[in-house]
Amino acid sequence: MPDAVCQSALVTDLYELTMAAAYFDNNFQATASFELFVRSLPRQRSFLLTAGLDQALDYLENVRFEASDIEYLRSLPVFAHVSDAFFDYLRNFRFTGEVWAMPEGTAAFAEEPLLRVTAPIIQAQIIETYLLSVITFQTMIASKAARIVGVADGRSVVEFGTRRAHGPEAGILAARAAYVGGCVGTSNVAAGTRFGIPVFGTLAHSFVMAYDDEEEAFRKFERIFPEHAVLLVDTYDTLAAIDKIIDMGLRPKSVRLDSGDLLELSKQVRRKLDQGGLRDTRIFVSSDLDEYRIEELLKRGAPIDAFGVGTALATSYDAPALGGVYKLVDVHTGEGPSSRAKFSHEKLTYPGRKQVFRFHSENGKYDHDVIGCEDEKHPDAEPLLERVMTAGKRVGPGPTLSTVQQRARQQLARLPEHVRPLIGAQPYPVTFSPTLKKLLESVRERIGSATQRSR
Amino acid sequence: MPDAVCQSALVTDLYELTMAAAYFDNNFQATASFELFVRSLPRQRSFLLTAGLDQALDYLENVRFEASDIEYLRSLPVFAHVSDAFFDYLRNFRFTGEVWAMPEGTAAFAEEPLLRVTAPIIQAQIIETYLLSVITFQTMIASKAARIVGVADGRSVVEFGTRRAHGPEAGILAARAAYVGGCVGTSNVAAGTRFGIPVFGTLAHSFVMAYDDEEEAFRKFERIFPEHAVLLVDTYDTLAAIDKIIDMGLRPKSVRLDSGDLLELSKQVRRKLDQGGLRDTRIFVSSDLDEYRIEELLKRGAPIDAFGVGTALATSYDAPALGGVYKLVDVHTGEGPSSRAKFSHEKLTYPGRKQVFRFHSENGKYDHDVIGCEDEKHPDAEPLLERVMTAGKRVGPGPTLSTVQQRARQQLARLPEHVRPLIGAQPYPVTFSPTLKKLLESVRERIGSATQRSR
Repeated sequence: MPDAVCQSALVTDLYELTMAAAYFDNNFQATASFELFVRSLPRQRSFLLTAGLDQALDYLENVRFEASDIEYLRSLPVFAHVSDAFFDYLRNFRFTGEVWAMPEGTAAFAEEPLLRVTAPIIQAQIIETYLLSVITFQTMIASKAARIVGVADGRSVVEFGTRRAHGPEAGILAARAAYVGGCVGTSNVAAGTRFGIPVFGTLAHSFVMAYDDEEEAFRKFERIFPEHAVLLVDTYDTLAAIDKIIDMGLRPKSVRLDSGDLLELSKQVRRKLDQGGLRDTRIFVSSDLDEYRIEELLKRGAPIDAFGVGTALATSYDAPALGGVYKLVDVHTGEGPSSRAKFSHEKLTYPGRKQVFRFHSENGKYDHDVIGCEDEKHPDAEPLLERVMTAGKRVGPGPTLSTVQQRARQQLARLPEHVRPLIGAQPYPVTFSPTLKKLLESVRERIGSATQRSR
Repeated sequence: MPDAVCQSALVTDLYELTMAAAYFDNNFQATASFELFVRSLPRQRSFLLTAGLDQALDYLENVRFEASDIEYLRSLPVFAHVSDAFFDYLRNFRFTGEVWAMPEGTAAFAEEPLLRVTAPIIQAQIIETYLLSVITFQTMIASKAARIVGVADGRSVVEFGTRRAHGPEAGILAARAAYVGGCVGTSNVAAGTRFGIPVFGTLAHSFVMAYDDEEEAFRKFERIFPEHAVLLVDTYDTLAAIDKIIDMGLRPKSVRLDSGDLLELSKQVRRKLDQGGLRDTRIFVSSDLDEYRIEELLKRGAPIDAFGVGTALATSYDAPALGGVYKLVDVHTGEGPSSRAKFSHEKLTYPGRKQVFRFHSENGKYDHDVIGCEDEKHPDAEPLLERVMTAGKRVGPGPTLSTVQQRARQQLARLPEHVRPLIGAQPYPVTFSPTLKKLLESVRERIGSATQRSR
């Protein structure tokens, strides 16, 4: 079984390690809390669907520096004045902290902490880069998948994007996240075996082209895959290929269209199949699809049964990054106030360890969220962050991926209607609690007296 | 040293394996040639810079099916009618073919084969997905980096994007490709050790926030990194932080601005630093930069010495996928004509094994390329595809990454001026040779008589 994700401790930004050295050699002992959140949603998104926590926790349980890693670090001029003791520390480095997080498959919004780490500050710092990368990527893809599956309105959507993903591992992780977001499966076989996701796919144009004629290619393929063949019909001429299938007496499970005017072709193909007695043969469509094209095709009555979506899904093409950040919100050194905030220009962060409280409407839909301090009480609300790791170990086995997919489906069904449209969605209401705002003001005053008036 | 890339044979689309089974169980023996190319460039790109070949060749030398992989495949219902002999074949699967490719760091264009594989058809098919993923991703990032480094006009650009990359491995590969494209280095430590790329980075806002005041944070950091500190000055108030640095008598190598109006701030910071006697302290800037913002800042006279570019670079944000395809162009079965082409609607492919011929102007710049048949003679032109693998083994050791970077720089310098602007670039002239067009017509006639008139 292939390892899904590279887990070396060196998969981090150098500054995490220079800060670690500076904390260590200055004997700065502190327990720090960092929160991971998305500052603002891309214009084309109105909600997020969380994913990637399982890979994050795997990493936290396993992250290590190998001897060769430490040798490499020692060779870097930047570490010339760093003590031997620091490298000994790295040799024994383990993550021993606590993690709170939204379970995978949670509907979430900008500014809401998706995950919080509390650990000795050096540990909490070193893991930043990896956590951001693994959680924001899968969250981005799950969110994109939810949009696509949403407009497909009950029809199957299969993730097909590995070839256009950002490298082989990104393909595997995209397949996982797409499944969380509601896809029925993936073409990626590694994701199939690693995560138990159903895998799909039968033949490409090259198979049809390899034989002297299309009939022969279809016949040879059907012989080996009598129940599963999805015959690709657009290598030369789509409608002629359908005629051949009927004339040959084949009864494929599906035919796949991968080019041309999909609306017109799907109608003509459906008509031909029905007239030829192939009413059970389904029409599977691919070809640079995304949620907008699928919505348009279905609105205009295209008789399509299932969609394969590649590039747009596996790269989140219209919004290929989320502004994920990981911010220090609290530092306990044993003396002085602990809450931390950042006030630079547009990049303000709220201090203190937080909880996200979700309030429900009477109709069972989600009504609004309040981001508050972790110890606030809102008996009518559902707190979204749960403790998932203590002392560097998971608190229990995580849910299966199909449980996560189910949770996601339930969460999406409870989003208010106005949050779901592809275009012109209304923002879901998220506010900061009065207690949190008061904390922000007190930190601002403390920092202000130390910093801003000194100018 | 961390493995950079997952290399399991299961990192492929299921249809590669169903086609493999169909070829095998139908006893279809053929040697096939596939070419990997980008159908058309994104609107925002006028050239490509090739990268990723080294990872592709690593994979081809090492790709294997593990026993557990085969067990998994056998468990899939789709393979119910496939012979045991096929799974035995997979157990001993090795890539034994020949590969021609443009060396990494070559300037390339749409439609030009970047790589060609000739191998037994099952082998050549199974590797498709992985090759596309690893080559088009790095080529996309190297091409983006070349744009950014181009407008930085001699100033250093450092790749900072791992946290926003599409998973941890994508971060490592993006760092590599960005270096090929001209970046001086990366923040990604794993890429540093794996590929020998210079690594950069010193401290984040969290370090400043962890201490009670900014002065203390700067002092503690400078103590450990006296020659390398790049002090981050925008945690609270940028200009106040510069005053503190001067008042404290620090002489940092650089200061980093990461928010706010970078044009105005960089001018004010430069003035303060110069007045404070810190003429040697450089200004390093980050904060959602891309080639457009960098061009604008420099045009307006921002006194910036170096740039850190993250999201826009590591995700190729404005064009986050290349339309890379891998098309069957030739099949030798021992009988019948061998050239293959696809004619469906907008997705035509040219048949036959090709070479790309690059013609130079008298001034040493590149003038135009001709895509021709592999055995055409153009004595005045430079053929771009070289044999890099025979019988599944590299023909020799590849170039070092800094040699690749140097080649890229030389190639970019020889692009005609009108191909380089960020916006409004003219297309570089690429044509298909008369011989190739004639071959296309003959294949069209052959297929047409077999297929199109049958409708």
